[in-house]
Amino acid sequence: METWKIKERVLSANDRLALENRARLDQARVLAVNLIASPGAGKTSLILRTIEALRGRARIAVIEGDLASRVDADRVQAAGVPAIQINTGGGCHLDAPMVAQALAQLPLEAIDLLLIENVGNLVCPTQFALGEHRRVLVASVPEGHDKPIKYPTSFMDMDAIVLNKMDLIPYLDFDWEAFERAVRAVNRDAPIFPVSCRTGEGITTWVTWLYSAP
Amino acid sequence: METWKIKERVLSANDRLALENRARLDQARVLAVNLIASPGAGKTSLILRTIEALRGRARIAVIEGDLASRVDADRVQAAGVPAIQINTGGGCHLDAPMVAQALAQLPLEAIDLLLIENVGNLVCPTQFALGEHRRVLVASVPEGHDKPIKYPTSFMDMDAIVLNKMDLIPYLDFDWEAFERAVRAVNRDAPIFPVSCRTGEGITTWVTWLYSAP
Repeated sequence: METWKIKERVLSANDRLALENRARLDQARVLAVNLIASPGAGKTSLILRTIEALRGRARIAVIEGDLASRVDADRVQAAGVPAIQINTGGGCHLDAPMVAQALAQLPLEAIDLLLIENVGNLVCPTQFALGEHRRVLVASVPEGHDKPIKYPTSFMDMDAIVLNKMDLIPYLDFDWEAFERAVRAVNRDAPIFPVSCRTGEGITTWVTWLYSAP
Repeated sequence: METWKIKERVLSANDRLALENRARLDQARVLAVNLIASPGAGKTSLILRTIEALRGRARIAVIEGDLASRVDADRVQAAGVPAIQINTGGGCHLDAPMVAQALAQLPLEAIDLLLIENVGNLVCPTQFALGEHRRVLVASVPEGHDKPIKYPTSFMDMDAIVLNKMDLIPYLDFDWEAFERAVRAVNRDAPIFPVSCRTGEGITTWVTWLYSAP
């Protein structure tokens, strides 16, 4: 009971700060997207493809969340985009205070689109609001079509679902209809974007949904 | 500070119960293995291959941890092995109390090897002892060779690392030497078993390490 009360208080503090993050983003007219996925589903590759597809149309910045290392931030910066690396030091998700610190280091007035790559984890990141406008789950073909059945809460509150690594379909027993049916059982509306970050397939459709240039 | 103290108390309660689980397993001469992996890395497929390879040599039981569904327990039971499904209802890892409840439902005296499939999550399950004798991380080729760099704490305390989906190597840019180097930076001793649960490649070597029949 005691534990529960304290957890409740911690969550509220996170939500309050998430609202403050949101207000800062709105004031600077930045669209913020929280990308959630299992390790290795291809979040960073999707970010790199998105940067490429929107070059000259949107000014992008990236926040990279990882337990350790700056591998991802370095890859993104090499693509000519400002990137802040957050190391959680073992923590299993980003939270609103971490994102608030990162926002303070970014030139928000000069940014249109902020991509936030959460820690690779299908469970915990869904429970912490960061202040984002859109929440996107990146699934991948090798993970199998049964993931929405086993992780229903992860697919439930998403604004869109990207299904990456479509180029591996010929080598796997992935059942697209079973996947779609399982997603629809917990999420009626989110568009599903099949893509391959390797070949570029489907990226244009995804980017059009993500960011229609004014 | 308050929060920290209570967390500390909760962890100790888990560890105490993990020791009790371990004592029960030892008394019944059951070898227990905690399988940890990202969603879709192939833990259930590895369990099915292991059951097949040890048929007639070891009496196996399985505990399946998932947020929801009994997909995995059904697959394992179809292979003729007792399986207990634990649904965490959104929880991101198994803990010692959950495993204690499952142990109470298993005929431990009639079991030699207990495979515990943790919730698909590379981060949180590593922080909760269950009473297992061996802790194995199942990585997979499509996740990429940089995972030990980004999730060092997950690879650190493992007794073995299985690298699944080796059959996909021709279609991906997986660098085996980079993977091995990254593992060795945080874990000097754990054997690495390259396998394909699809083709059966490497399963014999893995099973020999896991369970040398008396």
